[in-house]
Amino acid sequence: MKEQKVKPLKSWVQIPKNSDFTIYNLPFGVFRNKRLSPRIGMAIGDKIVDLHVLFCEGFFSSIHLPEEVFLKDSLNEFMALGKPMTRKVREMVQELLLEENTALKDHRARGKVMVNRKEAKMLMPVKVGDYTDFYSSKEHATNVGTMFRDPENALMPNWKHLPVGYHGRASSIVPSGTPIHRPKGQFKAPDAEKPSFGPSRRLDFELEMAFITSNPTKMGTSIRTQEAEEHIFGFVLFNDWSARDIQAWEYVPLGPFLGKSFASSISPWVVTLEALAPFRTKSPKPEEPLLPYLQCEQDHGFDIHLEVGIQPEGKQETIVCRSNYKYLYWNIAQQLAHQTVNGCNINVGDMYASGTISGPEESSFGSMLELAWKGTKPIRLDCGAERSFIEDGDTVTMRGYAEKDGVRVGFGEVSTAVMPSNGKG
Amino acid sequence: MKEQKVKPLKSWVQIPKNSDFTIYNLPFGVFRNKRLSPRIGMAIGDKIVDLHVLFCEGFFSSIHLPEEVFLKDSLNEFMALGKPMTRKVREMVQELLLEENTALKDHRARGKVMVNRKEAKMLMPVKVGDYTDFYSSKEHATNVGTMFRDPENALMPNWKHLPVGYHGRASSIVPSGTPIHRPKGQFKAPDAEKPSFGPSRRLDFELEMAFITSNPTKMGTSIRTQEAEEHIFGFVLFNDWSARDIQAWEYVPLGPFLGKSFASSISPWVVTLEALAPFRTKSPKPEEPLLPYLQCEQDHGFDIHLEVGIQPEGKQETIVCRSNYKYLYWNIAQQLAHQTVNGCNINVGDMYASGTISGPEESSFGSMLELAWKGTKPIRLDCGAERSFIEDGDTVTMRGYAEKDGVRVGFGEVSTAVMPSNGKG
Repeated sequence: MKEQKVKPLKSWVQIPKNSDFTIYNLPFGVFRNKRLSPRIGMAIGDKIVDLHVLFCEGFFSSIHLPEEVFLKDSLNEFMALGKPMTRKVREMVQELLLEENTALKDHRARGKVMVNRKEAKMLMPVKVGDYTDFYSSKEHATNVGTMFRDPENALMPNWKHLPVGYHGRASSIVPSGTPIHRPKGQFKAPDAEKPSFGPSRRLDFELEMAFITSNPTKMGTSIRTQEAEEHIFGFVLFNDWSARDIQAWEYVPLGPFLGKSFASSISPWVVTLEALAPFRTKSPKPEEPLLPYLQCEQDHGFDIHLEVGIQPEGKQETIVCRSNYKYLYWNIAQQLAHQTVNGCNINVGDMYASGTISGPEESSFGSMLELAWKGTKPIRLDCGAERSFIEDGDTVTMRGYAEKDGVRVGFGEVSTAVMPSNGKG
Repeated sequence: MKEQKVKPLKSWVQIPKNSDFTIYNLPFGVFRNKRLSPRIGMAIGDKIVDLHVLFCEGFFSSIHLPEEVFLKDSLNEFMALGKPMTRKVREMVQELLLEENTALKDHRARGKVMVNRKEAKMLMPVKVGDYTDFYSSKEHATNVGTMFRDPENALMPNWKHLPVGYHGRASSIVPSGTPIHRPKGQFKAPDAEKPSFGPSRRLDFELEMAFITSNPTKMGTSIRTQEAEEHIFGFVLFNDWSARDIQAWEYVPLGPFLGKSFASSISPWVVTLEALAPFRTKSPKPEEPLLPYLQCEQDHGFDIHLEVGIQPEGKQETIVCRSNYKYLYWNIAQQLAHQTVNGCNINVGDMYASGTISGPEESSFGSMLELAWKGTKPIRLDCGAERSFIEDGDTVTMRGYAEKDGVRVGFGEVSTAVMPSNGKG
């Protein structure tokens, strides 16, 4: 798992150039199509391996899997089998897809196993129990602190001592392709006497990634940084939609609530920690001594290129942000150790988002709030339009991939159209 | 449902004087015992009506209930049948328990239907999807603001304009009788250079009540105040355990996280809105004009007596707080309208706690933080001990009941023993 050199692999499945879904990746997701009820698959190239059909055809008979474990509308039961088993399944499928392996390639059921990705509808990959949103990018926290508080003291005193985070709303996490409505709510301009009510005027994205846990814990116990990755199944891209005007008025003293809870969007393919192993990298050096429970023995950062595009309705897309997951100050092992250090129990399917991933360059800022600096520097799109925040009809798309020595492992995308506020209610 | 006069009812079940579980109440819960797997029951006196046995004996044959709907480890599927159906079930059981009704009283299966409450273990009544904690007591928010900010401006500017709330951790909500471990974490004394780590030294309870939703909504839609109660199944007592030292260091700027997520405790019997109807009361008059979506046409307050007792290990219990649910400034209709006004969807089993319920008198303050005023006025217990916060070995018990014209509807209790921090991790 810690190896840095990747053995070159070739598959009998044709994989388009620059595909995120190479033989090295093999992410898990939940899909359906006109014929098929929801089930678990793995992406490769333009295909999905239907794991349920593979199971029915006896390809997993050498390992002990429960009946119909892949005929589910979430990965939760599969993930609950534990990482040794889920790793084994991924390895077996990878083996089956190798060029020299004819077991599936020449099998009569090959056509049934290999589903066209274009014809599939991707569903939520997991049932999210609890969802935490961290705040782990120093650049993002500094930008926000500079804008709203004091440039000299942009970071709060606790920021370098613990991975700040808060609980988010799990019910409104939706997969890529699900349009969202502009939220309504209260906001108050600094010079206004009273709050007013209406559709948010400052709808924003936040470029984030999220990990998902598969190995639960009991209340009263904690996870150490060196054990953390044994609890983590994989990652998705995460758009933490934010209504800045609602958030600004509501968030003191108990934190974000309705400014966030109307929607969060994720990419549907869960890329495993195993697939990301070659892209492991150091996190930024801690600038304050860390308490022992936050100290790490290994690298838990990942070099993952990220980008955000805005496409106004009927117009071309402009990439407005290029960032990288490796910029994060706090890593996943620290986040999970902190989440559980007080004895908080975690469950299969819990989700933990990183917080907005901003880098040092202006072009790497992960939200419109930062890119257009609170509306003072609107962004010009390639189609000629300007944006300070997201407008109705815009589609926001986030993409991410890791690449090294010709090996590419990507996330696909999370793409979301914004509709006007709902009239009712 | 809005009637204020209650028709006198008498049951053939013997109901001890001052029982919370009268013929007027009939709360729902999930129980098991040595013989019985988890199932749904209703409390009456010292008994539990086993609804699964009642179903199997044909008592519900006139209504259309799914097979084994009561043979579940949560109320979620039953609640999802909708309020007309769950109301009907409660009414049918109430009818069966009336003195003059012999259908169950003289039935051969009566012994099997009526389970001794003492022999039953109560489980979590619902699977909680999302959990919100509001902050709806003006007295509590004022006390906290006075202690930590400015007595002249104790309430934040938003407080009288919206029911402030935040998302809490659902995984660590446990039923009465589940001991909890003292949480560990980071805290920093104001005069300390660096944060330190260890078991919390300021463990506190918060006296709250929580409602549970049974009627889900879709993303992008909102619930109006006049529709809110059709989405609410019932109430439980809620102890929102808090580690004040962890909370104080972590909570800026994103709100409470590890200072709360280690545990919350609830009473196991869900008292329905229908049972509470006779105790409906006005909420305090709004002190600021409300935006239309927060205006109410009816009374949504309830006159429910609440108390908190502390019992050091092996000693007698002292009641340290007597409060009332009616003190809350924001009511359940406003809370649910606010939660959904941005289009946030709700699910069956979601839980919404009130925030600490403090009244105007010192003796009605709903947390140790307020009762002992930040440790400056320790409370003397009847056993002679003093308390500023909760100590290892203490059992904290919250009780609640409504009473009017000889009709009593109560919640039983949520009682939790505090154990030392867990050594591991």
